Amino acid sequence: MKNTHQHNLDFLFHPNSLALVGITTAKTWHWTSTFLEGLIEIGFDRPLYLVNPKGGEIKGRKIYTSLKDVPGNIDYVIGLVNAQVAPKLVEECAEKGVRAIHFCTAGFSETGEEQRVKLESELVEVARRKGIRIIGPNCMGIYCPQSRLSFSPAFPKESGPVGVISQSGGNSIYLVRQAALRGVRFSKVISYGNACDINENDLLEYLANDADTKIIALYIEGIKDGKRFRKTLEEATKEKTVILLKGGATEGGARTAAGHTAALAGSRATWDALCKQLGIISVSNIEEMIDVLVTLLFLPLPRGRNALLFGAGGGASVLIADEFENRGLRVPPLPPETIAQIREFTPIAGNILRNPVDYSQAMMNLEGVIKTFGILSRWDGADFLVTFVRTGQFTTSRISEDHLNLLMSRFSVKQGLFSKPVAMVLEPSILPKEAEAILAAIRGCISAGLPVYYSFAAAANAINLVLNHTEKQPKRVSG
Amino acid sequence: MKNTHQHNLDFLFHPNSLALVGITTAKTWHWTSTFLEGLIEIGFDRPLYLVNPKGGEIKGRKIYTSLKDVPGNIDYVIGLVNAQVAPKLVEECAEKGVRAIHFCTAGFSETGEEQRVKLESELVEVARRKGIRIIGPNCMGIYCPQSRLSFSPAFPKESGPVGVISQSGGNSIYLVRQAALRGVRFSKVISYGNACDINENDLLEYLANDADTKIIALYIEGIKDGKRFRKTLEEATKEKTVILLKGGATEGGARTAAGHTAALAGSRATWDALCKQLGIISVSNIEEMIDVLVTLLFLPLPRGRNALLFGAGGGASVLIADEFENRGLRVPPLPPETIAQIREFTPIAGNILRNPVDYSQAMMNLEGVIKTFGILSRWDGADFLVTFVRTGQFTTSRISEDHLNLLMSRFSVKQGLFSKPVAMVLEPSILPKEAEAILAAIRGCISAGLPVYYSFAAAANAINLVLNHTEKQPKRVSG
Repeated sequence: MKNTHQHNLDFLFHPNSLALVGITTAKTWHWTSTFLEGLIEIGFDRPLYLVNPKGGEIKGRKIYTSLKDVPGNIDYVIGLVNAQVAPKLVEECAEKGVRAIHFCTAGFSETGEEQRVKLESELVEVARRKGIRIIGPNCMGIYCPQSRLSFSPAFPKESGPVGVISQSGGNSIYLVRQAALRGVRFSKVISYGNACDINENDLLEYLANDADTKIIALYIEGIKDGKRFRKTLEEATKEKTVILLKGGATEGGARTAAGHTAALAGSRATWDALCKQLGIISVSNIEEMIDVLVTLLFLPLPRGRNALLFGAGGGASVLIADEFENRGLRVPPLPPETIAQIREFTPIAGNILRNPVDYSQAMMNLEGVIKTFGILSRWDGADFLVTFVRTGQFTTSRISEDHLNLLMSRFSVKQGLFSKPVAMVLEPSILPKEAEAILAAIRGCISAGLPVYYSFAAAANAINLVLNHTEKQPKRVSG
Repeated sequence: MKNTHQHNLDFLFHPNSLALVGITTAKTWHWTSTFLEGLIEIGFDRPLYLVNPKGGEIKGRKIYTSLKDVPGNIDYVIGLVNAQVAPKLVEECAEKGVRAIHFCTAGFSETGEEQRVKLESELVEVARRKGIRIIGPNCMGIYCPQSRLSFSPAFPKESGPVGVISQSGGNSIYLVRQAALRGVRFSKVISYGNACDINENDLLEYLANDADTKIIALYIEGIKDGKRFRKTLEEATKEKTVILLKGGATEGGARTAAGHTAALAGSRATWDALCKQLGIISVSNIEEMIDVLVTLLFLPLPRGRNALLFGAGGGASVLIADEFENRGLRVPPLPPETIAQIREFTPIAGNILRNPVDYSQAMMNLEGVIKTFGILSRWDGADFLVTFVRTGQFTTSRISEDHLNLLMSRFSVKQGLFSKPVAMVLEPSILPKEAEAILAAIRGCISAGLPVYYSFAAAANAINLVLNHTEKQPKRVSG
């Protein structure tokens, strides 16, 4: 009954009914409650059952003491039980006609302990015998906003074009949460853990053929079948933009990966070569992955590498020009005639009318900023505009929120108002008061369709990666 | 009367009286008010006069209509007047016996306009003729907590061992503000701008001989006298640890530097070679500079490069191990006997007892965390410990602040309780509620004498830079 090549996994993402087996009965905060909260929050609208031998109730919902007591049919089970009882749960599921189980449960092959490696083999054996597919164990499972599946109450309800396959649950949560704050939305996210049955190849084949997925982001610690993975990746890159984060690229990282999802990491060189050959955007951490997603989704593709930087602060301007040129982009000088036009209504003291344009002193003059944007918009020497507010640079920490909002609103050029692609840099602040204002500004930028980056370095890096990618490969898929 | 080599500039930092000339009389927020607010906030306790031809008052303080109307003596003037009247102000200052003027005023040689370059020469000529020293123009001047001088109300009142020389005012504000949030304190910070009279060499000579300054941080866009600068730097590095951030290291950055402080940038290669020869820690942005300062000040020097990483999240552990090994540090495996000891009281499911130690599931058990730290403390294979909380990874955004604080307190190992140097990674969150909790946690860590980093990558990078530096140069100066 071994059938790992079956790629019509659509049923996984559209269960008609669902049971959370082994959900905590304790009233205190417990990690298992995350699944129930996630499903409630996203509005799962089909039968949803809770099961725990202790019975009781959570949030007014009855907890059944066993699966067989559940009155209706169950398509899909989220297993939160202890590892030892996992094989038994598969047997019980088979009796209820369950088609797939996501085992969140950890404590299998990833421990490296012989007995637990054996337990995982046993689990797979029972599942195959009974014809039940398994996601995991040791993972968070499926987030699919369209069918109202989620593993965190913090995830957005709306769908988007990004599909994610992540060997790590924590990294998938971190990715979705952080990317969502910057406007990225997802078609399907699968945290697949130890991949004892359904593995990265099955999932990649599925996403490659999924009409709702335009961009595929992968977090991979190691693969089970290199040949098939390569072939599947090659197919995927023909239709979609693929971004890959390889965890365990160093000796220490690889050792950790082995202990995390029992994965064999493979050498850095092999992975780099693979990405280069197949036109995959290779990133080295989650932040970089999000920066690339934001760029693909919200920055209209610049026709070239010439950046116009607009911001505040003379010293900051020097450093941001360095950040851009160090990352393969160009910051060409502003021509004298353009400077002269801006100079007509802008005081020269405290403003540096070059590129970057330092508008420190004039920045509180909204009319001037708009007029300057109009003039810069007509300059043919730039391919895109990056503008920013560095809150940490204000001379007073007692700056009012209104003032900050005002300041930021002046940089809120809607995508399309300016004649070139526009990106926005908004540096986070660890001061809660500033954090409020910055979050509001980020939300404003997202509504205006702007890509938001947390630093000029990050913007430069991601724009460079996307330009590298599109230059090699003229097709470009975005949302 | 030319005397730029005079390095006893002590009088600059200890004026007996001070006048803010050209301070705004408008009631609304204005950048010039920053100086008055800064001086009030830090408790400047000698005569402080305000001057503006319009007269009036600010915050109940009389504004004199001219310098000569001021009743007392004036040692030091902060000039906020327009560039055109700057030379005239020097004349007036001479009549009052002023010894030094800091011209905040911009609109001189940095504009590149012939007339304004001439104006700056004129300014220097008058000052030299009258025997008055000038800081600037186009800069923020002096922050010296010991003598209660400040140019921002956001700066700490307490002194510390770090001296800063910054060509950029904005960068110096950003540096002090951001570094202060992580516990760094300063002896003297000088933003010196166009350096028409007092330049980087004078200031560097001064700080090299300043007993209150143990570490010198430099932000330099360009220098006036390369030979002298090299000699001065060489002297400075004999007694102090020097960190250098060179702005304008790229073509675009250099062009911007020219427009910012009229500085000639010099090639990247020249600067790199200089740092290497003289044992200067070279950094490429302000964040990196702060990371290095935090490391020098708060991380007891590790005896080697073996890191013990302790945190949460399997996938995160894989990536942080990569971050460390990619930056020249090692993440050695935990020996079986140590694992066995921890395993005795720690469930294996969901916790990865390797290095990094992933304590995901057990982390809410304070007793277990302390016991584990005790066992890890006795392991000889690690030279230092880095521990972290990644808030963005929590499965719910509705996590309570109490919960977050509880969680973080469990990682608050005071420097010295653990047998090895301890560093803390606390990732900032753009969610204001989390920002509150994280800020509180950062403050807790600072009180406990811990270095705080915003990412594992930043910690790894800074620890590597400091180890590189100390390995080459056995002496080490810290606060």
